[in-house]
Amino acid sequence: MANKLNITPLADRVIVKPAPAEEKTKGGIIIPDTAKEKPQKGTVVAAGPGKKDEPTTVKPGDTVLYGKYAGTEISFDGEDYLIMRESDILAIVPE
Amino acid sequence: MANKLNITPLADRVIVKPAPAEEKTKGGIIIPDTAKEKPQKGTVVAAGPGKKDEPTTVKPGDTVLYGKYAGTEISFDGEDYLIMRESDILAIVPE
Amino acid sequence: MANKLNITPLADRVIVKPAPAEEKTKGGIIIPDTAKEKPQKGTVVAAGPGKKDEPTTVKPGDTVLYGKYAGTEISFDGEDYLIMRESDILAIVPE
Amino acid sequence: MANKLNITPLADRVIVKPAPAEEKTKGGIIIPDTAKEKPQKGTVVAAGPGKKDEPTTVKPGDTVLYGKYAGTEISFDGEDYLIMRESDILAIVPE
Amino acid sequence: MANKLNITPLADRVIVKPAPAEEKTKGGIIIPDTAKEKPQKGTVVAAGPGKKDEPTTVKPGDTVLYGKYAGTEISFDGEDYLIMRESDILAIVPE
Amino acid sequence: MANKLNITPLADRVIVKPAPAEEKTKGGIIIPDTAKEKPQKGTVVAAGPGKKDEPTTVKPGDTVLYGKYAGTEISFDGEDYLIMRESDILAIVPE
Amino acid sequence: MANKLNITPLADRVIVKPAPAEEKTKGGIIIPDTAKEKPQKGTVVAAGPGKKDEPTTVKPGDTVLYGKYAGTEISFDGEDYLIMRESDILAIVPE
Repeated sequence: MANKLNITPLADRVIVKPAPAEEKTKGGIIIPDTAKEKPQKGTVVAAGPGKKDEPTTVKPGDTVLYGKYAGTEISFDGEDYLIMRESDILAIVPE
Repeated sequence: MANKLNITPLADRVIVKPAPAEEKTKGGIIIPDTAKEKPQKGTVVAAGPGKKDEPTTVKPGDTVLYGKYAGTEISFDGEDYLIMRESDILAIVPE
Repeated sequence: MANKLNITPLADRVIVKPAPAEEKTKGGIIIPDTAKEKPQKGTVVAAGPGKKDEPTTVKPGDTVLYGKYAGTEISFDGEDYLIMRESDILAIVPE
Repeated sequence: MANKLNITPLADRVIVKPAPAEEKTKGGIIIPDTAKEKPQKGTVVAAGPGKKDEPTTVKPGDTVLYGKYAGTEISFDGEDYLIMRESDILAIVPE
Repeated sequence: MANKLNITPLADRVIVKPAPAEEKTKGGIIIPDTAKEKPQKGTVVAAGPGKKDEPTTVKPGDTVLYGKYAGTEISFDGEDYLIMRESDILAIVPE
Repeated sequence: MANKLNITPLADRVIVKPAPAEEKTKGGIIIPDTAKEKPQKGTVVAAGPGKKDEPTTVKPGDTVLYGKYAGTEISFDGEDYLIMRESDILAIVPE
Repeated sequence: MANKLNITPLADRVIVKPAPAEEKTKGGIIIPDTAKEKPQKGTVVAAGPGKKDEPTTVKPGDTVLYGKYAGTEISFDGEDYLIMRESDILAIVPE
């Protein structure tokens, strides 16, 4: 359902559905509990076209790690999303 | 009526008619009430040509989300508008 | 008379004759009274050639909105003017 | 005599002979008395070649307005001059 | 095992497995004990493609020195990693 | 003797032999006594090749004015020199 | 022995073996004792390839002056080195 989000981010902005706070993912990544400013995980639901000569790399469906304080909250149909710049995304991880 | 606004923004500036403070839009986007600095919604009524080699993306009629403190207020014929840079606009959303 | 001002602004500088503090213009724009840092209106009387690869957009005779604290005051033949960068100008408005 | 100043400014630097503190110029420009940081007037006596791909615009003999705190003082044969960057110069004015 | 880490860093980001706190490496490098902000050693396990026109230099398997406070911690299958920008890496050293 | 200084400045760095504190030069330049941060005079003894696409302008033997706090002191054979960036040099003056 | 250091600095980083604190070099350069932040002397033992379109200028074996607080300490086989950016190096001096 997340992929049907009808929003077009501008430039290098990306909309991410934050993952529920499960401690362990399928791929086995554990986000350590004590670190402050540890990265968060989520799924890309929409990505802008990128900046001049720098198309965005992530695409809808990618599971990504992003900085804890990255982005701005919006909500849609009762779901919470974050809208952030692609440069706030650290890595694409296995689902 | 908003589209008839006879102002030509310079460079990458965009004039936005802020949406009335309805809690739920047609498309179902709810702007959460408690978040500080949450994005606002509005309709583009005029857009400048853009900066060198970077034409503006939004066009009059687009419904957009923008940062809470983006832009400067102006009023015209009794209506309030905001004039902001396109980089203050986060995304184009369904009306 | 303003157009006869014999000054050549350098680079992207523009000389503006501030409009008298009338509350309502022909086109109906009202500059709201309570906002702090609201834009001001004036008429371009001279514009520099622009910066490298970025010619200026405004031309003498244009009515423009500019930030409240934009520019530096000069006076000529008893008239007050502001000299500012074109980037301090927000939009061209109907006279 | 000012034009005979035998100094070669580097890059975009310009040497200006400040005008005596006459309140009214031939062209009628009055530098207002109460404004703080109001521009000053002077005559260009030497100009550097400019920066890469940006040759200087002003030339010796030009009467110019410049920011009040622009430049650094030097003196030569008992005369005081200012050496400043061309970007500190606001406009070329009638003598 | 480190090389099997299934993460794709974005842009110029690099994932490093910090070396255990052994005082002396095979190559004989000793990280001095008293210096504050001394570099740390680790092994690259994944590297992004680099930034526009600047591909990353390090590759998985490289032993690298990096600034003490570089990067953000993540953990995977019980192992701790750092995700940092390539510019946080000082040098490639013998294993 | 100054020209025999066997140092190769890197990039846009220039080595200057400060002039003795004589109050009046041959060309008649007097560095005013009361101004703070007034420019200093000296002779270029070595100049780097310049930065990418920006070769240095000054050459050994040039008498130059430079900002009072420009550069870093080094000494060689009992003589004091300053090593500074070319952008710290204001102008080439008559000897 | 210094040249055998098996480290590959990244980008524009350079590894320098600081000279022992001898007051006078063969070439006669004396680093003044009282100046604060005076430059230091050392020998380049390894240099990175440089940044995009800006290859490094110094090469192993060069004796260089560098800012007092430049670089980060590392040690190898009981010897101390500094790893710094080439822009921290002021000049190449006679050995």
